[in-house]
Amino acid sequence: MKMSHANAPSKDKPLSRSERKRRAILDAAAEIFLQHGFLGTSMDDVAARAAVSKQTVYKQFASKEALFVAIVRSMTGQAGGRVQSEMRDPQDREQLAAELLAYAERQLTIVMTPRLMQLRRVVIGEAVRFPELGQALYDGGPGRAIAGLSEAFTRWADRGLLVIDSPLAAATHFNWLVMGEPVNRAMLLGDKAIPGKAALRRHAADAVRVFLAAYAGPGA
Amino acid sequence: MKMSHANAPSKDKPLSRSERKRRAILDAAAEIFLQHGFLGTSMDDVAARAAVSKQTVYKQFASKEALFVAIVRSMTGQAGGRVQSEMRDPQDREQLAAELLAYAERQLTIVMTPRLMQLRRVVIGEAVRFPELGQALYDGGPGRAIAGLSEAFTRWADRGLLVIDSPLAAATHFNWLVMGEPVNRAMLLGDKAIPGKAALRRHAADAVRVFLAAYAGPGA
Repeated sequence: MKMSHANAPSKDKPLSRSERKRRAILDAAAEIFLQHGFLGTSMDDVAARAAVSKQTVYKQFASKEALFVAIVRSMTGQAGGRVQSEMRDPQDREQLAAELLAYAERQLTIVMTPRLMQLRRVVIGEAVRFPELGQALYDGGPGRAIAGLSEAFTRWADRGLLVIDSPLAAATHFNWLVMGEPVNRAMLLGDKAIPGKAALRRHAADAVRVFLAAYAGPGA
Repeated sequence: MKMSHANAPSKDKPLSRSERKRRAILDAAAEIFLQHGFLGTSMDDVAARAAVSKQTVYKQFASKEALFVAIVRSMTGQAGGRVQSEMRDPQDREQLAAELLAYAERQLTIVMTPRLMQLRRVVIGEAVRFPELGQALYDGGPGRAIAGLSEAFTRWADRGLLVIDSPLAAATHFNWLVMGEPVNRAMLLGDKAIPGKAALRRHAADAVRVFLAAYAGPGA
């Protein structure tokens, strides 16, 4: 069984038999879902590809919708965790610029992958029929990123590094300065619109410059 | 026959019989497409709803894909035209801020509608299978908006109103400062996430403030 990165086990603790099956189902369902969408996937297909019985699938996931919400949570949760886990509080303006740049580059590198872009396309295509899918992606993706930035910006404003009326508005601006163009181009133009490493770095540096012009404070 | 706004005839010239049929087909197909997606729509459904023969549909549009590309072009073209047609060149910093604000409010008001948001969701959901649909929406939507802003910013920089290295980068920043959050929330969270008039005005004013902090010049 191929383990996808999004559902890879943590290094230390061994998995129970039930947990291994759960992960096999999530991996199998993610592959089919990304290729055929929600309506084009059946629980039979998922069971067959995960090499378990349909009963086992239903024991782990009450419905197809619950299974797909779990996939969205798993994939966005892992990506969001990696974007946020390395955030550090800067001590001065130079560190502030470096920290924002590192965050932007990390977020672009982790999020702008064919798998996550395709997950997002499929979820958007189903968002009206299956609102829980869209909500799960929003919560684990931009919602979480903006909330994390907002908390950080509040602390950084307390140190005089930023001058902001609304940390939430500032976090929202930063998030979409960084993610707006590449994500939306990739949504409509496909994976060929995912920028290469050098272009992502330039784009991140540009976004940080615009953000700091509006929000940089006098310094700590 | 109900005429949708996007395909409304111009006031002055009467339509030929063939052009009337073409518009009836576009209107009918848009309704079905927005509700059922590309795969869920058949040319038979379109012909029935437009009250024409299937032969007539194929005489106007060589394929289902050609028909849907025409819908995307028509809907985004009308919206983009209305956003850009009223742009004026400002003479001083005060007019610059007012012009950017008026543009942002106009763009948000015209684009953030349930019909255009649903068009975008459906097109994103089909973008990998039918790349021409995504390309048509990109070209008529963000691509056109950014190109128009980029031309305007070049002129405004010549007058000393903006200081910019790359008009295209500045236009891209402005576009996503304005559209990034509301469009992406609506993509994932549905029409309940479309902001009301007062929220759109606040959001537009905020985006203009951030943009001018980074790009305002010494003035004409």
